[in-house]
Amino acid sequence: MNKEIEIALSSLREKKPLVHHITNYVTVNDCANITLAIGASPVMADSVDEVCDMVSISSSLVLNIGTINDTKLKAMILAAKKANELNIPIVLDPVGVGATPFRKKAVDDILNAAKISVIRGNLSEIKNIYGMEFKGKGVDAEENMGSIEEAKAVAKNLSKNLNTTIAITGATDIISDGKDIYSLSNGKSLMAKVTGTGCMCTSLIGCFLGATNAPLVSAVSAIAAMDIAGEIAYENLNKAIEGTSSYKMKIIDAISNLEIDHIKNRIKIS
Amino acid sequence: MNKEIEIALSSLREKKPLVHHITNYVTVNDCANITLAIGASPVMADSVDEVCDMVSISSSLVLNIGTINDTKLKAMILAAKKANELNIPIVLDPVGVGATPFRKKAVDDILNAAKISVIRGNLSEIKNIYGMEFKGKGVDAEENMGSIEEAKAVAKNLSKNLNTTIAITGATDIISDGKDIYSLSNGKSLMAKVTGTGCMCTSLIGCFLGATNAPLVSAVSAIAAMDIAGEIAYENLNKAIEGTSSYKMKIIDAISNLEIDHIKNRIKIS
Amino acid sequence: MNKEIEIALSSLREKKPLVHHITNYVTVNDCANITLAIGASPVMADSVDEVCDMVSISSSLVLNIGTINDTKLKAMILAAKKANELNIPIVLDPVGVGATPFRKKAVDDILNAAKISVIRGNLSEIKNIYGMEFKGKGVDAEENMGSIEEAKAVAKNLSKNLNTTIAITGATDIISDGKDIYSLSNGKSLMAKVTGTGCMCTSLIGCFLGATNAPLVSAVSAIAAMDIAGEIAYENLNKAIEGTSSYKMKIIDAISNLEIDHIKNRIKIS
Repeated sequence: MNKEIEIALSSLREKKPLVHHITNYVTVNDCANITLAIGASPVMADSVDEVCDMVSISSSLVLNIGTINDTKLKAMILAAKKANELNIPIVLDPVGVGATPFRKKAVDDILNAAKISVIRGNLSEIKNIYGMEFKGKGVDAEENMGSIEEAKAVAKNLSKNLNTTIAITGATDIISDGKDIYSLSNGKSLMAKVTGTGCMCTSLIGCFLGATNAPLVSAVSAIAAMDIAGEIAYENLNKAIEGTSSYKMKIIDAISNLEIDHIKNRIKIS
Repeated sequence: MNKEIEIALSSLREKKPLVHHITNYVTVNDCANITLAIGASPVMADSVDEVCDMVSISSSLVLNIGTINDTKLKAMILAAKKANELNIPIVLDPVGVGATPFRKKAVDDILNAAKISVIRGNLSEIKNIYGMEFKGKGVDAEENMGSIEEAKAVAKNLSKNLNTTIAITGATDIISDGKDIYSLSNGKSLMAKVTGTGCMCTSLIGCFLGATNAPLVSAVSAIAAMDIAGEIAYENLNKAIEGTSSYKMKIIDAISNLEIDHIKNRIKIS
Repeated sequence: MNKEIEIALSSLREKKPLVHHITNYVTVNDCANITLAIGASPVMADSVDEVCDMVSISSSLVLNIGTINDTKLKAMILAAKKANELNIPIVLDPVGVGATPFRKKAVDDILNAAKISVIRGNLSEIKNIYGMEFKGKGVDAEENMGSIEEAKAVAKNLSKNLNTTIAITGATDIISDGKDIYSLSNGKSLMAKVTGTGCMCTSLIGCFLGATNAPLVSAVSAIAAMDIAGEIAYENLNKAIEGTSSYKMKIIDAISNLEIDHIKNRIKIS
């Protein structure tokens, strides 16, 4: 997989894909900045009056339901259908899908309306989409990961069911396209104390998708990049006086300074 | 009060309450991050289609009218009524209530619809709710505090009138539940040069409320935490080259590193 | 021009103008913080129920179409008309105007409804308003600047056509009120890797407008301040471990520490 990641990162930096986001207003600035930091170009637009035009000039579409409402959901569905028409890949972040029926309906509506290339969530979110009872506690709560083996089974089965790539992020990340399955164990637990590390990871998947249109490689590359940036940032953190806000800054910094050797030297993949 | 603050902080960190925010899009990221930094878990959701479900799984509700509109106001009122039903405490931040009639109406509508546990604002905002003529200059403007004695009278009377805890923040902070009244004089004036220090303080009140459901202690604890973080951040600021953006980061850092001894050793309360 | 900039900055810091923003949810926090950092006071409000009241107590109005939708456009037009009535200056940021027909219509509607004091955009955005075929690639994409001479002609002609001041920012900045024309060549290319440097620059123009109501001087002063802050921030950046997120923070820091001598000593203007 290392070679594929190297090619994907080179491609991203050469093509500088435009990544259309329809996302929440909580972490949107960080998503835009990490998109720029990795070498792509973000555009945020969510009006029903322009999302079809905007996605048409973009290389990928990021859908994030963090602060979803009825109007934004309509825009997502319009944009997703247009993206499918134009073979523009889509990544979906089902933020807190287990928290409310409306979020569940939003994800169902999106999945019924369009083919999604990658879904990235934590285990509770992915289990919820899979139909298992596992009520999410909000959107940033720590999750009981369950066993790795269970997560792998969920990822593989759900990816087959939905014909998509499933990425479950957590202490161990599981990525499967229904055939192959990868585990990553980079990252730092402090990342869970920064809002938006999941959203940013999803944006990075969008960046790689925009360059490669290869879902499995994009998900693995983005998650490796995010987690390794989390490690580098942690090493650069002066724990005596710096805390979670410095840590967020240093994660984005690490992405903007990321070289392929950082990934090659650090990646823990199986 | 020191013992109560210690218990409240321990409780917050043990319970990690989920704090539902319906808030503005200006400072929302900082509010989410400071909620995580203190040890709670944020969820931001403002659609009328889900706020009742979301607040039902939360431990407290933060209402902040910073970028209020008609739809968001409807969502706030729905969520507030549901919170009341479930005995989930609410903190209200009446941002810029004196600036426009619509903000005044929004606050009136919220206060008429639901019982609020804590209202936190600057003196002009609280005076406006109290019915005094004192036109606010926007939302971040420096305020002429008036006399401390006047502020104490306003806090005490308004808290009795509304059966809520009133927190007036400024150079001196005044907190009253209508019976007891506390003054805090921690903090740094540079905090007024960072947008959202008031909003973040309100979010911290929401965090403590979610853990304790004790309005007076929650307001005192949160304001003490915020102001002392402002002091620690200021001491860590390299004034020769660092400015207000570094300062914001260091305030959130200080919250994420906050220990009870920081509060005990620094608190100036009477 | 140096003397005019000095007077404008002094005036801004003395008057602390309230700057009403109707802006996007991506960079709004940075716009609020840079407004505070330069010495003005921000207020963000976009409900049709209050924008006329809010602009009436403000000293200038910033319109930024970054995440425009139909409702926000209505609010912008209401606020702009009221601002015109009250002789409150307006700066418009036509973010990504070339990207979709809806953005083009939004800018047309605003320009038809109200007199704008300053329009600030990159070359592709300004060319689009001028009516030249030049399809923008999103909102943060690097632009082929074309020749400086062409940019100068566009700025001068468009400012005459619209009776406004046009500011084209890029490696070289061109500012014209239709009579005079200035070029600035401060700044660093790394600024393009931070989302919102353009938006923040527009907010700074709003700050100077609110203090002086002098469009040409305001645009030159704000762009000089922004670009020189970009230089100072770059010099303070530890490139070995710091990246684009630290850079953003240091830009706002530099604005909060900005003195007139920084501008006088560094400005490259012709």
